[in-house]
Amino acid sequence: MFQGLLAELEKNLKRLPGIGSKSAQRLAMFILNDDKASALKLANSIKEAVETYTHCSVCNMLSETDPCEFCSDDNRDNQIICVVENTQDIYLIENTHAYNGTYYVLNDLLSPLDGIGPEQINFAGLQQLISKNKVSEVILALSPSTEGETTMNFLAEELASQTDKITRLSTGLPFGGDIEYTSSLTLINAFKRRYNVKENG
Amino acid sequence: MFQGLLAELEKNLKRLPGIGSKSAQRLAMFILNDDKASALKLANSIKEAVETYTHCSVCNMLSETDPCEFCSDDNRDNQIICVVENTQDIYLIENTHAYNGTYYVLNDLLSPLDGIGPEQINFAGLQQLISKNKVSEVILALSPSTEGETTMNFLAEELASQTDKITRLSTGLPFGGDIEYTSSLTLINAFKRRYNVKENG
Repeated sequence: MFQGLLAELEKNLKRLPGIGSKSAQRLAMFILNDDKASALKLANSIKEAVETYTHCSVCNMLSETDPCEFCSDDNRDNQIICVVENTQDIYLIENTHAYNGTYYVLNDLLSPLDGIGPEQINFAGLQQLISKNKVSEVILALSPSTEGETTMNFLAEELASQTDKITRLSTGLPFGGDIEYTSSLTLINAFKRRYNVKENG
Repeated sequence: MFQGLLAELEKNLKRLPGIGSKSAQRLAMFILNDDKASALKLANSIKEAVETYTHCSVCNMLSETDPCEFCSDDNRDNQIICVVENTQDIYLIENTHAYNGTYYVLNDLLSPLDGIGPEQINFAGLQQLISKNKVSEVILALSPSTEGETTMNFLAEELASQTDKITRLSTGLPFGGDIEYTSSLTLINAFKRRYNVKENG
């Protein structure tokens, strides 16, 4: 529908996740109708962010600095590593203020059919980091999806000899969730992992 | 949640229509994880489009050239003007290949309570264009909303002495629509404007 630079802008916007043709057209028109300064600010902040951010050479996190803020922070316990799928997960965990160890970003989950093996998830780097820092606990904070489970099984097996403790995030009913709408897999798991209320208070 | 350049990017993305906090975070992370070239292309096409596009001095359309492709095209009948709310509407109408006249973009609809009067919708420019081109028909292609109706009433009244023919787009049931889900206002109007099937074929 659009032509020239507008078509080009639409095409580039459509590459973003969740943005279809109609949305891309709407966004493109908004950007053109917007005051020039704000639109240029957007263009500039994309450029600056893309050109500045890099993968931390220690943990693979996308960061403005290398090493990243967590790897270079002496107040963080580097003998605990929390393994996450991507950088965004780190922000989610940081938001809880419940964790003070370091992180390791896989950037993907194992999926042999898609050609994603141990090399694609930076497994060697994780092994090196564990031996270098004499890590006492590896927390596998991956989604309990098919790929997540595959990856956690792989990591648990391969890392067993390198560290004493390998844990994964608890699974069960989500707070605020409704048993009626819970999948039977989740419910079976929640039954199996039920805990004593008096003990765990 | 984000910091530094990433937070800046999130903030600038959140200004776009239909993009909330969560979407902005997701887009920002996608842009950083994306290959650098594509992300820079997006930034660049925003910048280029914003810096190149301008309002056509004849019809107010957002265009790469001034006058725009329609105003400078001798094959278009400039004695018919189609009045639209914004540039995007022009593209929608062009897509139908059913119209070969010129356009005039109001960029807004009358809304006295929001301080949008005849000056804000470029009314003087429309009047000048009509007398200059000796326009024989003005088509009011505005939405049948409250503001649209107000604007069409205003234009019909004010332009009556300047041109012979002032038309507006037909109103009625939309093709593919279901009478059951049609508003009663639409239905009343469709009854009132019903037409003879034999005559109109």
